[in-house]
Amino acid sequence: MSDILIRSATVLTMEGYDNIINDGEIAIAGDRIISVGARGSAPEYFKDKRIIDGSGMVAMPGFINCHTHAAMTLMRGYADDMPLMKWLNEKIWPLEAKLQPEDFYWGTMLCTLEMIKSGTTTFADMYFEMGQVARAVEKSGMRACLSRGMIGVAPNAQEAIDESIRFVEEWHGGANGRIKTMFGPHAPYTCPPEYLQKVAGLAEKYCVGIHIHVAETLDEAENIKAAYGTTPVRHLEALGILDLPVLAAHCVHLDQGDMEILAAKKVSIAHCPESNMKMAAGISPVPSLIRNGVLVALGTDGAASNNNLDMMEEMRTATLLHKVATGDPMALPAFETLKMATRSGALALGLEDTGLIKKGMKADLILVDFHHPHLYPRHDLLAHLAYAAHSADVDTVIINGEVVMAARAVLTMDEEEVMERAQECAVRLVGRK
Amino acid sequence: MSDILIRSATVLTMEGYDNIINDGEIAIAGDRIISVGARGSAPEYFKDKRIIDGSGMVAMPGFINCHTHAAMTLMRGYADDMPLMKWLNEKIWPLEAKLQPEDFYWGTMLCTLEMIKSGTTTFADMYFEMGQVARAVEKSGMRACLSRGMIGVAPNAQEAIDESIRFVEEWHGGANGRIKTMFGPHAPYTCPPEYLQKVAGLAEKYCVGIHIHVAETLDEAENIKAAYGTTPVRHLEALGILDLPVLAAHCVHLDQGDMEILAAKKVSIAHCPESNMKMAAGISPVPSLIRNGVLVALGTDGAASNNNLDMMEEMRTATLLHKVATGDPMALPAFETLKMATRSGALALGLEDTGLIKKGMKADLILVDFHHPHLYPRHDLLAHLAYAAHSADVDTVIINGEVVMAARAVLTMDEEEVMERAQECAVRLVGRK
Repeated sequence: MSDILIRSATVLTMEGYDNIINDGEIAIAGDRIISVGARGSAPEYFKDKRIIDGSGMVAMPGFINCHTHAAMTLMRGYADDMPLMKWLNEKIWPLEAKLQPEDFYWGTMLCTLEMIKSGTTTFADMYFEMGQVARAVEKSGMRACLSRGMIGVAPNAQEAIDESIRFVEEWHGGANGRIKTMFGPHAPYTCPPEYLQKVAGLAEKYCVGIHIHVAETLDEAENIKAAYGTTPVRHLEALGILDLPVLAAHCVHLDQGDMEILAAKKVSIAHCPESNMKMAAGISPVPSLIRNGVLVALGTDGAASNNNLDMMEEMRTATLLHKVATGDPMALPAFETLKMATRSGALALGLEDTGLIKKGMKADLILVDFHHPHLYPRHDLLAHLAYAAHSADVDTVIINGEVVMAARAVLTMDEEEVMERAQECAVRLVGRK
Repeated sequence: MSDILIRSATVLTMEGYDNIINDGEIAIAGDRIISVGARGSAPEYFKDKRIIDGSGMVAMPGFINCHTHAAMTLMRGYADDMPLMKWLNEKIWPLEAKLQPEDFYWGTMLCTLEMIKSGTTTFADMYFEMGQVARAVEKSGMRACLSRGMIGVAPNAQEAIDESIRFVEEWHGGANGRIKTMFGPHAPYTCPPEYLQKVAGLAEKYCVGIHIHVAETLDEAENIKAAYGTTPVRHLEALGILDLPVLAAHCVHLDQGDMEILAAKKVSIAHCPESNMKMAAGISPVPSLIRNGVLVALGTDGAASNNNLDMMEEMRTATLLHKVATGDPMALPAFETLKMATRSGALALGLEDTGLIKKGMKADLILVDFHHPHLYPRHDLLAHLAYAAHSADVDTVIINGEVVMAARAVLTMDEEEVMERAQECAVRLVGRK
C-alpha cells in the first residue's frame, strides 16, 4: 500500500447530482482518500508519490454487487432456459452436492477475477465453505460481506449454524478489514420461524447483519401465504428479523404494506433484475420502493442465473426494465441508477465509508477509459455510464488503497491460472470436457 | 480481397441446433465462404493462403442490426430520461435541423466504427443525406441496406421522394455490392395513405423493399385508430403496402389479427427491445410473433435512444425481457436469440446469402475470443454467447471476404480521426465543449 495521486481524471464523486470535477485529482494515503478536487488541490508532497494518469478517464466509486453466490461461477452456462424447479432439482443441486473445497476456492477466484475486470470493488456473498470463499477474497484484494447460506429445513441445519458462528468468529474484520461477515438464512420458505429467530439472536449477539432471499418468486409468496397467512415481508417482521440490519435479495413480489414495512425497518434491498428476468421470477417494484423511502442496491445474483457478474450491464438492464415496466421513460434516471450500483450498495452493506469519492472514504474506486467509439461524442457523462458504457471500458481498479487492476491487467492473481483451474474444476464436476 | 483460411476455431454455423464444429476451419475465396468443416477439410491449396489462427475463438456469422439511424450516433447521450414528445420537440428535432452534410458522414462513420468493434457486419439504416451515409458505409467496409427516411406530412415530402429515387438509382448495388437500398416511409402516422401508396409504387418499380416504423407506441396505435378506425398493421395491409417486401421496425402494439397478417404477408420485424424499453414504448410480443410464424430480427435503433449499437447486449436484453414478460424462463432460448441477431436478420433484409457460415455464403463472419474470465468455464457455447459475452470479446471481423478488424483494430478507417471528427461535429452542433 503506497500513497497514490490520480491526476487529470474527470471525477464523478457520486455525492450528488452534477458533482463532476473536470481535470480533477484524487490523493490516496494508505487505504483512504485524503483529498479530492481540481488540479493542484492535493497536498504538495503527493507530487513525489505514485502518479496515475487519469487523462481521458472517468474516476468513480467502484461498483458494489450486493447479491452473489460467487462459487456458482463454476456453473455459468451449465443449465439455462429451464423452469426454476427443474433447474434446481436436475442440474444445480446435484452439481452442488459434488462440490469439493477447492471448487469453492477456484469458483470464487474466477468470480473475483471477473468482478475486478468489470469494475466491482465490493460484493455480498451467500454460499457454503465460506472459509474457502474468504481465502479467495483475501487473495483477490476485494472487499466483501460474506455469509454462510443456511437452510433451516435441511438435515444440516444445525451444522450450518455452527459453521456460520465459526466463520463469523474467524473472519469478521479479516483480510486487513476487507472482509465483513453476516448470517445468511436462505429464505423465509426454507427456514422455519424458530430457526430464523435463532439465527437472528446470533446475529444480534455477534453484531452482524442478515443476508436473506425475500419474495423472489410467486411460489414463495404463495407458500408463505399458505403456511403463515401473510406475506414474506410481514412474516419476517412478525418474527422480529427486520429489527436487525437486513440485506434482502430480490423482493420481487411485494404489496404497498410490505414496502412501508421495508422502509420503516430500514431493510436494504439487493435488486437483481437480470436474474429475475432470466428465471422469469418477475419485476421488483423498484421505483415504488424508492418512492417509499426504501434503500435499493443492485446485485447480479450468481453466474448460474445471470450469466455474468457485470454491474454495468446490470445497471443498464435495471434502468431500461423499470422504464418499460412503469411506462415512464423518466423512471430510474442515469444518476439514480449509478447511485444504486455504488453508494446505495455501500449503505446496504453497512460500509458507510465506501461508495463515494470523498475525503475520508476508503479508496475503493475505478477509472473508466472513455476513449472508445461507443462513448463518443461526449454529451453526458452520466448517460454514457448508465446507458452506453461496457465493463471492458474499466481500465484501473483500486480497492482499499491498493491498485488491483492497471491497464486491465489484474495484479493480485495469475489470471491464466484462475481460468485454467476453474475450468479443471468444472470438467471434473460435470465429468466431461 | 485475398483468400483466407481460418483454422482451429470453434465454428458456430447457425445452420441448426448444435451445429458446432470443434477445431473447425473455414476457407474464404474472394467474397465467399467456399468450405466449412473439421480440421483438414479445406482445399489443399489454402495452406499457402493467408492463415488466421482461430484458437480459443468462436467463429460465427456477424451480427445484423436491422434498424438504425446511424448518423444519430452524434446525439448519443444528448437527451435522456425524457418523455418521447419532449425528447423529440425540444432536443432531437431542433438538433437534426442543424445537421450539415459532414455531420451525416462523421456520425455514420462513428456508428460503423462502433458496430464493427462490436461484431456487426450488416445494418439497415433510415435517415437523411443518404449519399453521405453510403459513402461512410463504402469506406467502412460494412454491408448495409439504406433508406432515405420520408415524412409524408412534412413540407419536404415530395423532395424526400425525389431524393429517395436518386439515392436508389445511384447506390443500389453500390460499394462493390455491399450496399442495397430501400424506400423509407417513416411511419403510418407520419405518411398519409396516398403518400404511402406512391412510395409503394416506386418500390415496386425499382424492385426494392420498404423500411418503415410500425406500431411503435400506444399513441401511434390510437392515432391510427382515430384516423382510420383500424390498427397500423391492418391500415398498411389495406393500402397494399404489405404486398411488398417490408421491414417493419418495432411492432410493439399488435393484436392477434395483426400477427396473422404479418405472418401471411411475410413482413419482417426489426425488434428493438432496448429502445422500446428506454422510451417506455412497450414490449413487442416477440414469442407470440415467432409462434405465429413471423420472421423477427433484431435492431438497436439509433444511439440517441439506446444508447449504443451493441448487438450482443441487444440479444441478451431481448431474451431476458421476453422471459420475464411471458413468465416463461424457456422463452427465446439461447439459439433462437442468436438466430434473431444473425440469420433472421439476413432474411429480413433479403440478404439470403448472409447470416450463416456455410459453403456458398458471403464471407461475413466474426471471431469471438473466448479466453476471458466471464466465458469460463466452458459449459455451453450458445449460453455464453447469449447470456455472458460482451461485444469487446469480438476479436476479428470479416465482411465480404475482407478483414475489417483484426485483434480489435479496425483496418478500414483511422479510429482516432473518426472519434475526433465526430466529437468536433457534436461540439459545433450543441455549441459547447
